[in-house]
Amino acid sequence: MDLSAGVWESLRRVRERSPLVHNITNYVVMNNTANALLAVGASPAMVHAREEVADFAAISQALVVNIGTLSSHWVEGMHLAIQSARRSQVPWVLDPVGAGATRYRTTTAAELARQAPAVIRGNASEVLAVAGEAEATRGVDSTQSSEDSLEAARRLASSLGTVVAVTGRTDFITDGSRVVAVENGHPLMPRVTGMGCTASALVGAFLAVEPDAVLAAAQALTVLGIAGELAAEHSKGPGSLQLHLLDALYMLDEVTVRARARVR
Amino acid sequence: MDLSAGVWESLRRVRERSPLVHNITNYVVMNNTANALLAVGASPAMVHAREEVADFAAISQALVVNIGTLSSHWVEGMHLAIQSARRSQVPWVLDPVGAGATRYRTTTAAELARQAPAVIRGNASEVLAVAGEAEATRGVDSTQSSEDSLEAARRLASSLGTVVAVTGRTDFITDGSRVVAVENGHPLMPRVTGMGCTASALVGAFLAVEPDAVLAAAQALTVLGIAGELAAEHSKGPGSLQLHLLDALYMLDEVTVRARARVR
Amino acid sequence: MDLSAGVWESLRRVRERSPLVHNITNYVVMNNTANALLAVGASPAMVHAREEVADFAAISQALVVNIGTLSSHWVEGMHLAIQSARRSQVPWVLDPVGAGATRYRTTTAAELARQAPAVIRGNASEVLAVAGEAEATRGVDSTQSSEDSLEAARRLASSLGTVVAVTGRTDFITDGSRVVAVENGHPLMPRVTGMGCTASALVGAFLAVEPDAVLAAAQALTVLGIAGELAAEHSKGPGSLQLHLLDALYMLDEVTVRARARVR
Repeated sequence: MDLSAGVWESLRRVRERSPLVHNITNYVVMNNTANALLAVGASPAMVHAREEVADFAAISQALVVNIGTLSSHWVEGMHLAIQSARRSQVPWVLDPVGAGATRYRTTTAAELARQAPAVIRGNASEVLAVAGEAEATRGVDSTQSSEDSLEAARRLASSLGTVVAVTGRTDFITDGSRVVAVENGHPLMPRVTGMGCTASALVGAFLAVEPDAVLAAAQALTVLGIAGELAAEHSKGPGSLQLHLLDALYMLDEVTVRARARVR
Repeated sequence: MDLSAGVWESLRRVRERSPLVHNITNYVVMNNTANALLAVGASPAMVHAREEVADFAAISQALVVNIGTLSSHWVEGMHLAIQSARRSQVPWVLDPVGAGATRYRTTTAAELARQAPAVIRGNASEVLAVAGEAEATRGVDSTQSSEDSLEAARRLASSLGTVVAVTGRTDFITDGSRVVAVENGHPLMPRVTGMGCTASALVGAFLAVEPDAVLAAAQALTVLGIAGELAAEHSKGPGSLQLHLLDALYMLDEVTVRARARVR
Repeated sequence: MDLSAGVWESLRRVRERSPLVHNITNYVVMNNTANALLAVGASPAMVHAREEVADFAAISQALVVNIGTLSSHWVEGMHLAIQSARRSQVPWVLDPVGAGATRYRTTTAAELARQAPAVIRGNASEVLAVAGEAEATRGVDSTQSSEDSLEAARRLASSLGTVVAVTGRTDFITDGSRVVAVENGHPLMPRVTGMGCTASALVGAFLAVEPDAVLAAAQALTVLGIAGELAAEHSKGPGSLQLHLLDALYMLDEVTVRARARVR
């Protein structure tokens, strides 16, 4: 099925509507992910205090929860935000960064995963850890390929009634029955910190304009992958890649998106 | 009145004296604002713990308090730092990020605003919220133009005895009676996260060398606006803008500042 | 003695083994230091919560503790991580950012320094403060030259049985008896925030592959200095320097390292 038309249509809508995307994310990537969201036309906000997190989630068009640098106060804020988002029917994305690396991280990720996220976006090791099928994560970088975890991703998606997006050389997005694969991207991308976190943030922006969560996640990952390819053409290393990626996200046009999208 | 001579004079003094600027700011922009302060020649420090924040404020030449990612421990640190700054006659700047978006944020901003900041720097929605004249903020991006809030800014400045700087397409700086307008800047600037926070940080650096807070704020905003214009000439998107902005702040010379300054 | 062969050999090993480097560092530099570690081929992780910090330190190949934006919860996490690292014989690096600026910072740095770090990396003012020989730090930028503090560094290294690396125009690395000097680097580097923090992070990565801590620290500082020199050749200011530095760290080859290394 040709899904590339939808990629452009959703990107166009993000730019037009500028959805407010509420992020509770890690310290390492706050700047990048805010800039990536601005570059695609969304309106990012980073808000985590328990005093205001529920109020803020309720006025947002999407919520992104990322456990990269979690601590107990922040996890409390995450739960409050998620409850509020669910009450207000705001879709939310879980990024279980480093699940599998420590018991605290795995347990927290698993608890959050049961709170009806629209999408869980992780690398293969993280998805296996959330699925309870491995504890093999080494730090925050995956030790598994995305193919290896596809069956675990399908089972996880089915059992939780959510969409799981496993990113890697090929990205797979599944709700347990449907599987969409995205072949865009570039090998230099994982050499920039927080590229996965940026992916999750963009999934949030696309969920705000595309109610089918499989499509929203696939579209966001396609956009990021295309921007990464374009950026890599002008980059000598990870420093320039990060800069050109933001420029590419900002400049993407319909012709480029349709010509480059490799999503099926 | 030609205010452009003062812009260069103050920038020259910042470079010469390298004032220590104490920032209690948000996680998203700490890196950018530290780099912008270094680029203009100031010496930035980010210090927030209640155990040391008073000691640090007392040895600084300016304090910048930004509520972008506030939480209760940090607000406590803000109050301690402000009390210390006031005792030591260190001027301080308030950036009420996202005031109006949640009750917690609006209340905190209003409380801080009553602690005699030398300058309050915000976008139109934030200034209206601090003035108690609106609760219209949508996330952290303004929904109002700076012109719309000028009268509210004047009233706020008069009632608090402070200077209010409302930034937008035109920046307005007022102490309630005087109004200075800055026309520098570029439309791509708001597509980089934390540009307003950078503005507030630079206001801090200029307050350290220029006792007239209306002039200090106007000068800092002029410098940032000029640097943004120069950066935009070499930028294809927000990624390159952020890089070139730091280079431009670092390289600004007297001829360029005098030729480009649009402050009156 | 020609130490340049070892520089390349260790860099090659970092790329080959991709050591997991656990960082408890400050908010300002998390992104930069993660990217610098990725650029040299290491696998960085930023983990600070007391619930998991001991587990994580135990599976890492090196730990880096940086007090740049310290607070009581984080200091607790630092101590737990250090105890775990010591039990598992994971080498750890202390970066006493801003020691001397406040009593809290000086005391905390001194306490951590007594927990058997493999390397303490600081600027001259910070090293003097940890050594208890001065309280002259002004913010986080050094007011002393590295030469001035060399004798204090030797005494500190001897008394603690550790290696002390004082960075500045010339970097000195000493275990109290041996002294290695690194002459690489560029004057534009201190105009980018967190360059010292990046140095400490790279020392962590090199400790993971080189057991002699004097050599590991000297090699890491040489690599950073060479990358800074290469980056400065293409940079107009601190914005471009930061980008080109990451690219240079990523691209460094044996011929360049051997030709440029000035370590003796």
